[in-house]
Amino acid sequence: MNTGSRPLIDKIIELALEEDLGPGDLTTWAIIDPSIKGKARLLAKEEIVLAGIEIFAKVLSRLDPEIAVECNFHDGDVVAKGKDIGVVKGSIRGILSGERTALNFLQHLSGIATLTRRYVEKTDPSKVRVIDTRKTTPGLRILEKHAVRVGGGFNHRFGLFDGVLIKDNHIAAVGSISKAVAKIRATVPHTLRIEVEVDDIKGLKQALEAGADAILLDNMSVKEMKEAVTIAGARVLLEASGGITLESIEEISQTGVNLISVGAITHSARSVDISLEVIQRT
Amino acid sequence: MNTGSRPLIDKIIELALEEDLGPGDLTTWAIIDPSIKGKARLLAKEEIVLAGIEIFAKVLSRLDPEIAVECNFHDGDVVAKGKDIGVVKGSIRGILSGERTALNFLQHLSGIATLTRRYVEKTDPSKVRVIDTRKTTPGLRILEKHAVRVGGGFNHRFGLFDGVLIKDNHIAAVGSISKAVAKIRATVPHTLRIEVEVDDIKGLKQALEAGADAILLDNMSVKEMKEAVTIAGARVLLEASGGITLESIEEISQTGVNLISVGAITHSARSVDISLEVIQRT
Amino acid sequence: MNTGSRPLIDKIIELALEEDLGPGDLTTWAIIDPSIKGKARLLAKEEIVLAGIEIFAKVLSRLDPEIAVECNFHDGDVVAKGKDIGVVKGSIRGILSGERTALNFLQHLSGIATLTRRYVEKTDPSKVRVIDTRKTTPGLRILEKHAVRVGGGFNHRFGLFDGVLIKDNHIAAVGSISKAVAKIRATVPHTLRIEVEVDDIKGLKQALEAGADAILLDNMSVKEMKEAVTIAGARVLLEASGGITLESIEEISQTGVNLISVGAITHSARSVDISLEVIQRT
Amino acid sequence: MNTGSRPLIDKIIELALEEDLGPGDLTTWAIIDPSIKGKARLLAKEEIVLAGIEIFAKVLSRLDPEIAVECNFHDGDVVAKGKDIGVVKGSIRGILSGERTALNFLQHLSGIATLTRRYVEKTDPSKVRVIDTRKTTPGLRILEKHAVRVGGGFNHRFGLFDGVLIKDNHIAAVGSISKAVAKIRATVPHTLRIEVEVDDIKGLKQALEAGADAILLDNMSVKEMKEAVTIAGARVLLEASGGITLESIEEISQTGVNLISVGAITHSARSVDISLEVIQRT
Amino acid sequence: MNTGSRPLIDKIIELALEEDLGPGDLTTWAIIDPSIKGKARLLAKEEIVLAGIEIFAKVLSRLDPEIAVECNFHDGDVVAKGKDIGVVKGSIRGILSGERTALNFLQHLSGIATLTRRYVEKTDPSKVRVIDTRKTTPGLRILEKHAVRVGGGFNHRFGLFDGVLIKDNHIAAVGSISKAVAKIRATVPHTLRIEVEVDDIKGLKQALEAGADAILLDNMSVKEMKEAVTIAGARVLLEASGGITLESIEEISQTGVNLISVGAITHSARSVDISLEVIQRT
Amino acid sequence: MNTGSRPLIDKIIELALEEDLGPGDLTTWAIIDPSIKGKARLLAKEEIVLAGIEIFAKVLSRLDPEIAVECNFHDGDVVAKGKDIGVVKGSIRGILSGERTALNFLQHLSGIATLTRRYVEKTDPSKVRVIDTRKTTPGLRILEKHAVRVGGGFNHRFGLFDGVLIKDNHIAAVGSISKAVAKIRATVPHTLRIEVEVDDIKGLKQALEAGADAILLDNMSVKEMKEAVTIAGARVLLEASGGITLESIEEISQTGVNLISVGAITHSARSVDISLEVIQRT
Repeated sequence: MNTGSRPLIDKIIELALEEDLGPGDLTTWAIIDPSIKGKARLLAKEEIVLAGIEIFAKVLSRLDPEIAVECNFHDGDVVAKGKDIGVVKGSIRGILSGERTALNFLQHLSGIATLTRRYVEKTDPSKVRVIDTRKTTPGLRILEKHAVRVGGGFNHRFGLFDGVLIKDNHIAAVGSISKAVAKIRATVPHTLRIEVEVDDIKGLKQALEAGADAILLDNMSVKEMKEAVTIAGARVLLEASGGITLESIEEISQTGVNLISVGAITHSARSVDISLEVIQRT
Repeated sequence: MNTGSRPLIDKIIELALEEDLGPGDLTTWAIIDPSIKGKARLLAKEEIVLAGIEIFAKVLSRLDPEIAVECNFHDGDVVAKGKDIGVVKGSIRGILSGERTALNFLQHLSGIATLTRRYVEKTDPSKVRVIDTRKTTPGLRILEKHAVRVGGGFNHRFGLFDGVLIKDNHIAAVGSISKAVAKIRATVPHTLRIEVEVDDIKGLKQALEAGADAILLDNMSVKEMKEAVTIAGARVLLEASGGITLESIEEISQTGVNLISVGAITHSARSVDISLEVIQRT
Repeated sequence: MNTGSRPLIDKIIELALEEDLGPGDLTTWAIIDPSIKGKARLLAKEEIVLAGIEIFAKVLSRLDPEIAVECNFHDGDVVAKGKDIGVVKGSIRGILSGERTALNFLQHLSGIATLTRRYVEKTDPSKVRVIDTRKTTPGLRILEKHAVRVGGGFNHRFGLFDGVLIKDNHIAAVGSISKAVAKIRATVPHTLRIEVEVDDIKGLKQALEAGADAILLDNMSVKEMKEAVTIAGARVLLEASGGITLESIEEISQTGVNLISVGAITHSARSVDISLEVIQRT
Repeated sequence: MNTGSRPLIDKIIELALEEDLGPGDLTTWAIIDPSIKGKARLLAKEEIVLAGIEIFAKVLSRLDPEIAVECNFHDGDVVAKGKDIGVVKGSIRGILSGERTALNFLQHLSGIATLTRRYVEKTDPSKVRVIDTRKTTPGLRILEKHAVRVGGGFNHRFGLFDGVLIKDNHIAAVGSISKAVAKIRATVPHTLRIEVEVDDIKGLKQALEAGADAILLDNMSVKEMKEAVTIAGARVLLEASGGITLESIEEISQTGVNLISVGAITHSARSVDISLEVIQRT
Repeated sequence: MNTGSRPLIDKIIELALEEDLGPGDLTTWAIIDPSIKGKARLLAKEEIVLAGIEIFAKVLSRLDPEIAVECNFHDGDVVAKGKDIGVVKGSIRGILSGERTALNFLQHLSGIATLTRRYVEKTDPSKVRVIDTRKTTPGLRILEKHAVRVGGGFNHRFGLFDGVLIKDNHIAAVGSISKAVAKIRATVPHTLRIEVEVDDIKGLKQALEAGADAILLDNMSVKEMKEAVTIAGARVLLEASGGITLESIEEISQTGVNLISVGAITHSARSVDISLEVIQRT
Repeated sequence: MNTGSRPLIDKIIELALEEDLGPGDLTTWAIIDPSIKGKARLLAKEEIVLAGIEIFAKVLSRLDPEIAVECNFHDGDVVAKGKDIGVVKGSIRGILSGERTALNFLQHLSGIATLTRRYVEKTDPSKVRVIDTRKTTPGLRILEKHAVRVGGGFNHRFGLFDGVLIKDNHIAAVGSISKAVAKIRATVPHTLRIEVEVDDIKGLKQALEAGADAILLDNMSVKEMKEAVTIAGARVLLEASGGITLESIEEISQTGVNLISVGAITHSARSVDISLEVIQRT
């Protein structure tokens, strides 16, 4: 799957560049002559899962269409500490003006991919999916969900429009799970499954009875999850959710649930260390 | 200082809502009648420094102008675990559709403010400023820099346009610090100071000689920093920079430098835990 | 379900007004004094299913926030020929400048709702859904899909992002239905069902075997559709598709398929006749 | 005359693609490898007047700049049923992702051109112009007016800004045709003619006396139109308007009026049948 | 006629504010508490024709919806030196942040209106119109054309879309005036007049023969203009154009031409002196 | 320094073209075949300082990417009356459609550069800088500030965000210069200098005492300015400001102030005379 659709990506890059450049790069424009060309190496300063290299290249080429990025790795590759991710060639002025914005994308997205992989490695991906949530950074969701995928995770819905998730507040508003599911079923496109959030076994049974296609087990104990699996088994998809950590995920992944959603992989991943160093000037 | 200028803030919110709502909130619109009103409490589930409460309110009122947020705290306040930050009143439909986007802003920004405060608490703010960098999340810089301020930190430049920072690559391109400074001085608006990045004492001396107004000490040891303070003393502003952590900042803050810039407070703050719970329906 | 998300709707209205107003309404501005207020009746000149009345009102209030629309009907209501849909009150200048754009939305959308109802009336909605397609007018999809809903129809996916539909070209590219389904299953969010397009019974069987959740029967004869229902029965959703007309839909609806998708309701509905007549000036 | 001005066209295409692609084409991106190239034929499945082929090509090249469209026909050409309009070459992924949006434009615009031609064929174009109205689809006016032109019709004004048309409500607001015309004449740029709408012979005479350059005969009978031609003859342009159909246009065209405006050619044209079939994969 | 259409005006104001505010008003936000209210007088420091007062008010209310502007004058009024144009009330912070942008509009537009009036005063407006050109400041045309109108001038076309003007390069490309006019007549909406630019009497005669509705006399001498009036008299509109100054306009206005277009009123008007002084703080 | 950052420049050009082209160039598109190519000379019809030649070229290439501009001069060059600035090659249609917009930029910006040079020539640039203000045309500030630079002037801050200037109203609001400076110092990024506006010697002394980095001498007499220089000498930057003209600037420049800000160079420069003449058609 791609990073995302072109019109959206272009808009995100445009905003990021406007934010950093404003009326212009005072320092670089005063010091660096536009005719100076050169090379810069893009260097992983710690082990990372690469994510966002196309965005990185697009940011630079938006500043100067002749800047080229030659990569040794693709999104999803593990790059060892000290390895060159690739080489950037072109006008030094364009490279220096775009460097920070391009790196901010790359370091942020690779941070998400790298953290995602750590979660995935605690599980058996043939049996359970580590998935993301809507707890993403405002404005960057399609990129962050791409980073989750290349880190070995999977995506939950992209927004409120491509998945149905009936939560406690929805249920409370109409009185019961069965009423909420009925209302959804009466209107929602047939292309979407219906998922219901429950916080105990009683809720699980109601959701099953209401005909939910998937059930989110909210903050359940491992013991309850196992019970849920026993009850719901192959009939529906079960999603474990709520405060899952690197410490707890392994045990949860062995309960038999199908999906484990982890907000932390998008909302709390730290940026990884990647640098761009000019190595040659011509 | 305010959160930021209205036109920019409005644009950021618009994008965040489009991203999450797309063609619409299928679940809520099918289940919740638009006439249902109610209240929801906004709850700090851990101790936080609050940041972004105005954005939080604006997101909800963009969905429904009649949604009101009544706050017990302001940005910059420390909110203890378990305390209600405020109450949201209005249409349940609007509240549920906007909840995630509004919280994503609030949790992300409060995360930055909370981490900033932890760094600031290791220093004596009457003697040294903890400042941010341009290592921010693309598209959210003005909000993140606001969060740094309410967390007790200070801002470095907002972009390439409101501050001069001559880095190693600029210097290399023209051959010497003195030439780079001279080129800048010949063009840059007089409203801006000239800062030069150096990585050793030799560079520091050259920068001083060139007449820099501020000098960034890049990845220097504490010992070197002290030497730099001794040499440059009251003549220029000295900024310590490069890989500064919660462990190292205290010692650095006692070297006599004026500013300590910390990329981690924006690029690697985790989201804090805040929830919105519907408590009443009318 | 609502007309659609606010930010998107606002953008569509903005573009429509810019297109018609350009630098300004030369005729009205020269002739009509801005202080003149009045009333205008919104009149159905043929029997219609109303759709788009909120958009109609929003267009006018964008020109002058004090223009109010008082409605006797809601979207989805059948309005008999000659009935007043409502009354518009406010500045005559604003009403005349916005009239055409507001009516263009209302007549176009009500045309779609009215045609949709004609298709739905040929079927038993408790047994089969009449659904729309992606054959919509560029830029107006969310509004047109709203019109389909209020006309008694249902929505297929809104775009390429909220539903999976594996078509002949996808299948051809990987060699078989089972390979295509396997590739999708390996990546797609669990919130989405997987639908496969087939054009004969052999394809249907392959899709069933591959585990499709829904199957689109492309241009099949009524006889084939019945056979498909017999084979696939309750196991999957079956969607009849391809050149369905007001003449053919009744028979198709009795084959036992679950969904009948009709491109014509959006791409070929004629505009209905609605007029706005100023009736009083003050 | 061209399809329209580049910046506007680009904006329309951008919106249409965002609407369909949203965060991405889940099906195609999962199944089709980006390296697969191929050819697809663009086929007229009924006799059409082609309109929008440049837009069709631009939509696809926005997704992938390397997709090329080789055409056998130009806008305005009649393409017989079963003929290939052209060939699309490039990445199958880009072609499949853009296909529906590109076709929606082409089928909609060719539908308008085809219907326009049917109206024009009932008239003698050397004596009378079939013209469009402002009853167009919101957001697509410049494209629809292009389609009218290539279908053999002509354009009325593009909006409220490039033509003066004094309607009944304008006249009522100031009391008389002569006052309305005088107010316009006192302000409007000299580049524009002044047209007045009248609904009887009395109004026609007043408009003539007021010095109108053109007169719109609103819903007049053929007999009245002939009388209007006798009275106004060569002095002004006469436009027949109001509920004109394929049945009535021939007789009206023989009354001697100069222009016949037909709302239906834009607001009620059905989409024509055009398909895109992948024929080769490499 | 109004200042212009709302969506366009809003977009212009948005851009102007973004340009000046960027991430924020550092000085005001640091010093002025948001709760401080006050009054400021808007003062004409020289005699002006007022233009743009609505834009002035809209800029301030965009920053703070509670800022109100109470005016003693309307656009088009002559305001004597030293007179108060009006009073601005509201938050001092909003007033100071928006002051410069609001004044830039008002001083620029009033400059145009004031200069326009000087040209108009040299003529007899009952006999000849002073009109503007397309030589306007990029991005501000609708506002500048409004300023021309309130200064007593009239508008030529707003752009390339609402008037036909056949220039020397158009004529050269097809070989003759008659061919150029014929090509236009064959396509252009009937709502538009056809104007032809000529630079000598021979051209004038050709344009008359070709049936032009208006003729632009490019850089002709007063003597030639008189001859043109004698020849073309009441048959067409004659527009004098080319390098017209405050010195030459009076004589030209007496030649009998109908229109005199003056580029200088928009492209070379100086800004007039208007100040905003805070007079009270509460 | 460059003309400005790409994303901003692109946006400005887009708006200018939309404003002039609207739905299309009726005249050119009807008359000029798109296949006709040619050359046009860009001619200085008076002595100018060239500014904006890159914008000029970008406007034309936005209309047709194959239009090329070959220049004999660069921004900042003095071009004598009658000299060819360069040659434009490409489709005549594109050249004629873009000509006016491209020239409007070039003539406006060269007007500013030319006037700036006249001010600069009255001074000794090695001793004093002629600088601009925020009194620019809304929407064009980055271009106008570029024109000032190439005319030999320098820039003051670009907006409210990249420089601190404490004005009388700020001081009045908090009671004293020292309080205002203290408030700023406590919050503002260290990259910015603090400038204070004063209107007499008393204010100057207070500003010095408060530690201002620069002081704006508002409307002071030459005598006062000299006294200010004597008092403040080398300690701070002194900026003369307020109603400075071509007549007064020379004497002011000899007072010893460091900067002279002149609003007139941006807000009241007249457009210079440059023409584009098609010279060859192929």
